[in-house]
Amino acid sequence: MATYFITGSSRGLGLALAGLLAAEPNVSKVFASARSESAGIKKLVSQSSGRVEFIPLDVTSQESAKAAASQVEKSLNGKGLDVLVNNAGLMPFLFDSIDKMTDLESTFTINVTGVHYTTSALLPLLKKGTQKKVINLSSTVGSIGMAQAYTILPVPAYKVAKAALNMLTVQYAQSFAAEDFTIVAVSPGWVKTDLGGEGADLTVEQASNALLDVVLRISTQDNGTFLNVKVPGWEHNEGANRYNGQCLPW
Amino acid sequence: MATYFITGSSRGLGLALAGLLAAEPNVSKVFASARSESAGIKKLVSQSSGRVEFIPLDVTSQESAKAAASQVEKSLNGKGLDVLVNNAGLMPFLFDSIDKMTDLESTFTINVTGVHYTTSALLPLLKKGTQKKVINLSSTVGSIGMAQAYTILPVPAYKVAKAALNMLTVQYAQSFAAEDFTIVAVSPGWVKTDLGGEGADLTVEQASNALLDVVLRISTQDNGTFLNVKVPGWEHNEGANRYNGQCLPW
Repeated sequence: MATYFITGSSRGLGLALAGLLAAEPNVSKVFASARSESAGIKKLVSQSSGRVEFIPLDVTSQESAKAAASQVEKSLNGKGLDVLVNNAGLMPFLFDSIDKMTDLESTFTINVTGVHYTTSALLPLLKKGTQKKVINLSSTVGSIGMAQAYTILPVPAYKVAKAALNMLTVQYAQSFAAEDFTIVAVSPGWVKTDLGGEGADLTVEQASNALLDVVLRISTQDNGTFLNVKVPGWEHNEGANRYNGQCLPW
Repeated sequence: MATYFITGSSRGLGLALAGLLAAEPNVSKVFASARSESAGIKKLVSQSSGRVEFIPLDVTSQESAKAAASQVEKSLNGKGLDVLVNNAGLMPFLFDSIDKMTDLESTFTINVTGVHYTTSALLPLLKKGTQKKVINLSSTVGSIGMAQAYTILPVPAYKVAKAALNMLTVQYAQSFAAEDFTIVAVSPGWVKTDLGGEGADLTVEQASNALLDVVLRISTQDNGTFLNVKVPGWEHNEGANRYNGQCLPW
């Protein structure tokens, strides 16, 4: 029976994934973390018969990450944490020239340092877990090799942060490969969330199921890769919305 | 007659490049910037017959970048700045597990935000220049595609920062392509500087000449690329020390 920790669970993909995991037969506990307990998390917790637990977490604070890890440790009562999904993130738009960008560092903090704080705080529990999986939510928008396709998308700080997150993921993957960890970056596709907007490719249901598939199927041979989700009907597209489950360019 | 601005000119590659540029026939002015005027800069300035000017610059401070740009503007007296070389950087070692890394943000600030502050502050002068070149000193260590080759090099924060810098470079390149800018990331190779250490591949003389070659030869068709230096005798190596002047993987 596996245990999961998800960041950014208040809404969107994080909340949907928490819900799907809570319904899986082999999952004993889902720690749904967010800065505050949203209505969505409250509802999920109340319907979960104790399988979903809310954990307060501001990923930009190392102290908050440590407090969250302490709470998880108590709740697990000696058991390990099996899987961490670093989903929390922010994509600020810049409606001006890039030289006017003022949120380069704050965007890095949320999307990159936040993953570092959360992963490092939960690492002792993950080492005690049986699956040792860390899934970092990245984006094809953070692929430097695909940058030409996203020229018109005005989110430079997010693009820089996700490229940085991909390298952080590889560094963690290399560091814990010998301990049989599987640490990957995953692009969930362009999803109709508050972040992705209404014009996006995938519904939250499609994307969260595709993400669940990645979370469940990855193993140590995927360690250090940058994976695309696989969505039925989208595998054979050309370009950025080809969701075929394969590795993405860095 | 071209004008250049170099960051991190106090020593190493930056100082050597400033010296080489000052000796070029078509160069009228080299602004050698650093936090403080090192003995090396003092010597270079005193021997340059006014062609080299020291500019105080702490790249981690936007105010400092703006003050530097003001000083350059006064000195240029209505003319534009032709070429900016963002060379300042820091590579801190981590002699512990990656989860103990405490310098992720400070390393990002120096290596990435510093380039953003400097480039944005000098942009109005670069737009008035005739060459419109920005060369960001990156590293193959920041290539996610080459990460496997650098597993044993314990500089995770630097690796993350240089990957982020590569994406920032591409974002700037896309933003100013229509104004005929040439904005590139360049890996200068592994150089026997304070940063690279004595065991490195290239002498400062070799690397600075190779870097000068890149600075002089790039044109708009190179915009947004990640270039390797070309060093005679090293073009046909296999692996990370193959200095063949070609594009590097992201």
